[in-house]
Parts: sequence; structure tokens; C-alpha cells
Amino acid sequence: MKKEIRILGIDDAPFNKFKKGNVLVVGTIFRGGSWLDGVLSTKVKVDGSNSTKKLIEMINKCKFKPQIQCIILDGIAFGGFNIVDVEELNKKTKIPVIIVIRRMPDFKKIKSTLKKLRKERKYRLIEKAGEVHKVSKIYIQINGISLEDAKKVLKISCTRSLLPEPIRVSHIIAAGIVTGESKGKA
Amino acid sequence: MKKEIRILGIDDAPFNKFKKGNVLVVGTIFRGGSWLDGVLSTKVKVDGSNSTKKLIEMINKCKFKPQIQCIILDGIAFGGFNIVDVEELNKKTKIPVIIVIRRMPDFKKIKSTLKKLRKERKYRLIEKAGEVHKVSKIYIQINGISLEDAKKVLKISCTRSLLPEPIRVSHIIAAGIVTGESKGKA
Repeated sequence: MKKEIRILGIDDAPFNKFKKGNVLVVGTIFRGGSWLDGVLSTKVKVDGSNSTKKLIEMINKCKFKPQIQCIILDGIAFGGFNIVDVEELNKKTKIPVIIVIRRMPDFKKIKSTLKKLRKERKYRLIEKAGEVHKVSKIYIQINGISLEDAKKVLKISCTRSLLPEPIRVSHIIAAGIVTGESKGKA
Repeated sequence: MKKEIRILGIDDAPFNKFKKGNVLVVGTIFRGGSWLDGVLSTKVKVDGSNSTKKLIEMINKCKFKPQIQCIILDGIAFGGFNIVDVEELNKKTKIPVIIVIRRMPDFKKIKSTLKKLRKERKYRLIEKAGEVHKVSKIYIQINGISLEDAKKVLKISCTRSLLPEPIRVSHIIAAGIVTGESKGKA
């Protein structure tokens, strides 16, 4: 795997979970773990179900598309419970997907919350995302890529923190734009 | 000068110059020419006169303030003719300012345009910004910093292009957020 591979990292901005509306989603294209080549953005509905469609649109229409060799998502959901269908994302973009999770998710709690919200079918998307693998100090789920290759992508991109650089930077950008100042860490 | 000095680079987003309103202004804090540490943002009026005040506010209230050792602006104006009073910016933030200009400005044309718009007093802010120095392939104006030190800042921060990295990246972010996809170069 080349050190200079283009990786797209995607995160959402802070939002008020008690308000309906859209949340900003930022994608950052890095060359390996060092250079920012481009920024994409879109909006998804808080607790809605359009994140898969919106991400596919954002990626497929961008000029960087032919170069992007891996998509990394900061978690499987954007804007609260707007859960991404990772299989669909991989199928429609034809790009491997890695979901990065900072702490081991409490699947029982997520399931019961979604049940309370009468959104149990969303849980199927989480189950569909597959096995959670521990890689050094973070966790990942993968689609369209082998665990071995996913580890290589992480090794190239985690240059500054435990998180891949395009995820760290997308987080900083999204927070800085929406709140006026980025705070703390991704 | 340390290679790791924190530099704040500021640029504005694309905007419709025939519409009144605000334009997004993005500030990116870099450690030297390599690492993005934080993102700030504010809005200024298209062709207004609040850019100096808005930049001072954005900088003085941010948590990164004590570390920032130099401010670099991508040109002296944001949102069209919302011209920055560079002397005031330096005085109120107590941080040296470098204005980066990509092509030698046509001062005659700017003056006649501002005259047509009956905004001649804005021209005084441009004159006040001082002498234009050529440094390698770009031009700069400086305030609160010697030409020698300004050259050192450029040497540390121009790692990826002719422009300082915090300017290149602020440009990419601002365009990516406002138009959905960053295009071309800063």
C-alpha cells in the first residue's frame, strides 16, 4: 500500500439533539497521513435516515472520487441516529469503508434506546455493519476491505493521534465552522 | 524562530458579490507548516466595514490566542471590499500580521474602483498597510514584524505550495463548506 494513498475521513458537527433540523457533515481528503488535499461537505437530518444517500451523493459527484481509495467514518451514525448503511455506501461508491469507533459500543444500550424511540429497524443497520475489531487502542468495523488492509490504512493515517488524520481534521473543521472555535480533540 | 510556532492563517469563502449578506471567514491554526491544531470561523459583511472588528473578536476570544505568534491574511480584504485595518488588528491582538498577496496588486485600479463606489476612505486602509515586498514568488505587507522575521515565518509555513500552509488550508476549508467541494488551489 502506497504511503500517499488518498483517504476520505468523515465526521459531523456538534448539534442540538433536542432540535429538529440538519447537521453539517464534513469530509476531508488526505494524502496519506500528512497533507490535506480537499474538503467536502453536506448536511443530514438530525435523527433522520438520509445519511447513506447524502454521503453517496457527496462522494460520487466530487472530483476527487477517482483517487479516493478508502472512506473512514467517525462512527456509524451522523446527526444522532441517522445511521449509515455501510454495505450500501461501499456498493454505491465502490470504495472500501472503515468505521472508526473510539470506545467499544454498548450495543445493548443502543438497541434499547432505538426500541424506546420505535426505531428498531435502524438497529439492523448497526448489526449489518459487522464484527467490531480492536486495532491498537481503537475499534473498527470494515466493509469491502480486509482486516489486514484496514490495519495498513490506519498505520499510514494515524500520524498525529490515535485517530486517522482525516477524521481528526474533519472533526476540528466541523466544530470550528459551527461553533466558531474547535475545542479539544476529535 | 522555532519550527513549531503556531501560525493563524485566515481566508474567506466564495460569495456572490451581487448579493448583500455575510461571507464565511475561516482561520486555521497550524503548528509550523505541517499540523493543523484548530479551526476558527466568523462572518463578515460583503463589501461592509466590520472585518477588522470581527477578526479581532475571533482571535482575542479563542483559546489558542496565547500560542499564536503570527497572523497571516490572504489579502487585505474579506467579502469583497471589507478591508482590514492591519495596524488596528496588530494593536488590538498584539500579534504580528503578514498579508500575503498572490499577484502584485493594481493599486490604481483598486483606487478608481473604490472612488466609483464612493468608498475612497477605504483606500486609506490599503495605503496604511504599507510597502509591498516581494518574497520569492509572492508579495507581502507586514505589521508588527520585521521583513527578516516575516521571511522566516514564510519559510517555515510554505511547505506544500507557494502559499503558507494555514492560508492554503483555510481556503480549501472555506470553499468546501460553502460550495460542498473545494476546487483548485488557494
